[in-house]
Amino acid sequence: MTTPAVQPSLPPNGVSDALHTPADLRHVLACADLDAETWRHVIQSAVVFKRSGAPATQVAAGKAIGLVFFNPSLRTRTSMERAAQQHGADATVLTPGSGTWDFAWEEGAVMDGTAAEHVSDAFAVLSRYFDALGVRVFATGTDYEQDASDALIQQVAEAARVPVVSLESAWHHPCQALADASVLHDRFDGDVQGKRFVLSWTHHPKALPMAVPNSALLMAARCGMDVTVARPDSHALDAGVMEQATTLAADHGGEVAETNDLDAAVDGADVVYAKSWGGPMVYTDPEQEAALRAQHTDWRITADRMAATNDGAFMHCLPLRRNVVADDAVLDGPHALHLDQAEYRLHAQRALLEYVWNV
Amino acid sequence: MTTPAVQPSLPPNGVSDALHTPADLRHVLACADLDAETWRHVIQSAVVFKRSGAPATQVAAGKAIGLVFFNPSLRTRTSMERAAQQHGADATVLTPGSGTWDFAWEEGAVMDGTAAEHVSDAFAVLSRYFDALGVRVFATGTDYEQDASDALIQQVAEAARVPVVSLESAWHHPCQALADASVLHDRFDGDVQGKRFVLSWTHHPKALPMAVPNSALLMAARCGMDVTVARPDSHALDAGVMEQATTLAADHGGEVAETNDLDAAVDGADVVYAKSWGGPMVYTDPEQEAALRAQHTDWRITADRMAATNDGAFMHCLPLRRNVVADDAVLDGPHALHLDQAEYRLHAQRALLEYVWNV
Amino acid sequence: MTTPAVQPSLPPNGVSDALHTPADLRHVLACADLDAETWRHVIQSAVVFKRSGAPATQVAAGKAIGLVFFNPSLRTRTSMERAAQQHGADATVLTPGSGTWDFAWEEGAVMDGTAAEHVSDAFAVLSRYFDALGVRVFATGTDYEQDASDALIQQVAEAARVPVVSLESAWHHPCQALADASVLHDRFDGDVQGKRFVLSWTHHPKALPMAVPNSALLMAARCGMDVTVARPDSHALDAGVMEQATTLAADHGGEVAETNDLDAAVDGADVVYAKSWGGPMVYTDPEQEAALRAQHTDWRITADRMAATNDGAFMHCLPLRRNVVADDAVLDGPHALHLDQAEYRLHAQRALLEYVWNV
Repeated sequence: MTTPAVQPSLPPNGVSDALHTPADLRHVLACADLDAETWRHVIQSAVVFKRSGAPATQVAAGKAIGLVFFNPSLRTRTSMERAAQQHGADATVLTPGSGTWDFAWEEGAVMDGTAAEHVSDAFAVLSRYFDALGVRVFATGTDYEQDASDALIQQVAEAARVPVVSLESAWHHPCQALADASVLHDRFDGDVQGKRFVLSWTHHPKALPMAVPNSALLMAARCGMDVTVARPDSHALDAGVMEQATTLAADHGGEVAETNDLDAAVDGADVVYAKSWGGPMVYTDPEQEAALRAQHTDWRITADRMAATNDGAFMHCLPLRRNVVADDAVLDGPHALHLDQAEYRLHAQRALLEYVWNV
Repeated sequence: MTTPAVQPSLPPNGVSDALHTPADLRHVLACADLDAETWRHVIQSAVVFKRSGAPATQVAAGKAIGLVFFNPSLRTRTSMERAAQQHGADATVLTPGSGTWDFAWEEGAVMDGTAAEHVSDAFAVLSRYFDALGVRVFATGTDYEQDASDALIQQVAEAARVPVVSLESAWHHPCQALADASVLHDRFDGDVQGKRFVLSWTHHPKALPMAVPNSALLMAARCGMDVTVARPDSHALDAGVMEQATTLAADHGGEVAETNDLDAAVDGADVVYAKSWGGPMVYTDPEQEAALRAQHTDWRITADRMAATNDGAFMHCLPLRRNVVADDAVLDGPHALHLDQAEYRLHAQRALLEYVWNV
Repeated sequence: MTTPAVQPSLPPNGVSDALHTPADLRHVLACADLDAETWRHVIQSAVVFKRSGAPATQVAAGKAIGLVFFNPSLRTRTSMERAAQQHGADATVLTPGSGTWDFAWEEGAVMDGTAAEHVSDAFAVLSRYFDALGVRVFATGTDYEQDASDALIQQVAEAARVPVVSLESAWHHPCQALADASVLHDRFDGDVQGKRFVLSWTHHPKALPMAVPNSALLMAARCGMDVTVARPDSHALDAGVMEQATTLAADHGGEVAETNDLDAAVDGADVVYAKSWGGPMVYTDPEQEAALRAQHTDWRITADRMAATNDGAFMHCLPLRRNVVADDAVLDGPHALHLDQAEYRLHAQRALLEYVWNV
């Protein structure tokens, strides 16, 4: 007995080649990946989703996004899952190292250690199952050059054959930035340009990464706001990012300044965006960074400070340490937008998926 | 170049305020949260789902429930997911501390420790993404007052802006109780009142919490059954719960007794509901509790004991330690309802979701 | 006040008995569970799914599969989830021991240890929630008889009341084998019989289980290929599996040989299927096995070896250690099928679900 051929004539094999030839993939690793029209359109759509009660659609029915978290998540994971589902798509959450394999990252690696799979193979495979991939991979905190070049998520994007959306990388958090920009447009009814935006460093028991402050700064600059970065001199942001922001602001009718005087900064501000970060010193002298950070427990957003603003809004990306970063009185007061920011993650990501999938 | 306004006229912003104003939220933290009509209706619907082969509906299409497990789950997680899906809704499982953040619980906490987020913020955020939240948060086992007042899940419910369904708290397990009541109504074809129900403590290598025995006792009392709690004198249930059950039984034509004589209790019983618990002594003298518990390996449901019943049904909420809590001969015999109880979790929760979402 | 009966006349109770009487369950624990027609049909369907761009269907709408992973997974988990979703079904991933209970496995166990639930109860319960169960449970690596008889997954299948699909057991990986057979039929346009297939052992830092090589060997034999197993003499496969493969090949017009000369084996081969395994010696003398394995770092698929083939395809089930099992030049070259194998997991599993659910 022999095995009969599966079928006299199989359908012509024309699909798989397409899979090997990534066309113009709509990766979103930073807001800079979005051109001016897309940037405006995503923000606009997000506000419309929010104000119209977020009606479900089926525009992405049959599609699926794989959400790969190398680091933990609450908001990002659930808001991205819901964003996909509200468009009729499926979402799968993967947490490498917990229930799946550890990955090797180096090109040409001789993999005789603990990693069972190379990241390039893993993401090539996932590209066969999903129509887009969301990826969270935080900063190393030890290799400045690698973090500042966002080398890990870049490597993921090179391996993938479907669009990759950053769910926070070493250097950027575009989904947060889009949500924040949408909240601001909602708050000021589209009239954001020229408003005074303070990005305020705060005390925190840990040296946090810079993806969120980088993205918030660049976002406010791109909105043409009048931006002040308030931080102790020990905790200035990366000089390159400051320069990028300055150029971006100038291009959009705004400006960027920095100061070590928080009280002066918040005086008359329209928005106080609180966020702690370890900053570049973490890479060069972590002990010194910790010692200096510990001195600045007064870098906290209090009701008094908010009272000095121009009925200013309080923003934070969450999670937030109450009474360390900001006081209960601020967070539970009428000008706190942190919950709206969280909600806008969902709306902005729905709008972003429409772009990514061109639906 | 300046950033154009997002749109000349955005839709009026009338939605977000509604989100901040929780209307009459249908929290289900205990069966007492369900009025008489709802209680009957959920049980009735569950039996109909079961007997009609559980046809899928789309009554909750577009909705989603977030299932937050501070403690592990097999049955609850899967049955609640399926319950939502069988109504066309989505379900997301979150396990804080494993892949997401640790939470602070105390009001006014200065969060300079390990917790990265306050439970009040986390559940306020999740309320923006989900149409209901299921929450499992077990007893502390060390703070009796906190556990007996169900303080943790109450705090979750206060933070949430959507209905919260308990997936077992320190003191109650309403989903289990509704499934159990439905199984009894199925078994006795609706004629449950007056049947003899024995809640029997059993031996167990661990001091287990009281949520299930509390809920089973209150459930049987509410069904108007003739209830006996059989337990060693060292392992009486909370006096307040016993009193509540006694009142509830009287209101529904039944009664509640307790005894330390298991053999007398099961004689002629219609139902033997096995369950171990550590009881109040765990809080005051855990070593003494363990020592006394270890003496009672004979508190085990055997085939001989079941033979003394009135063709009585065996019940247990699972998971169950075979040949410690009950013998294989009982579990694999014709009167064992534990698998039906597990299945009824699904049907009862579908009925409960119809109530919670008013669909 | 008394509790009214739930309803004068409940619908007749005719459903639950059916649940207790498993009819002819379509378990798929190994490819041998598929008859000749089903085997051909699944492969045929998989190729059609691939070549036609994998259009979504709703043939399994309302159904759900529970995916239980006792061991980690990346490809299997996501491809099975997507397979179900692409047919309109739901999929739930469960990882016992991580967020759920530990299980006892022994029949008659007195469960006074750490396991909170017996596997027989767990899978009986899951059968109430799902329409099929996928189960991954790897080899013990210490009990040869148990592993070779696939005792654990057999026990799961006996407990289940719905079809069980192996997601890799101690001895078999039928989903991988079906994907591999489909890739081969795609590659050779259905003309697989008589092609030269080399299953090549490779070096690896760990002693890997035998499920994949067993299944790959039996698959190639069933396809009527001219099969050579190349391995060091220390790493022969199980004698019983070799015998089974020889008989199977003879029945389908092929043959099976084995050799310790890899270079001779690959000369003129149409397919080189690379895979490492610890083999039977792991069970009898693990230290000796490790020492012998360490000597064979030259058992690696290099570009030179592939150049000696008949324009041969390279296959591997993944995950794969680059430059240990096979060189980058092979993996990134034009004849590497490992990503297609991964993709075919999805297509083959969709076809398999159609069989399992008879849809």
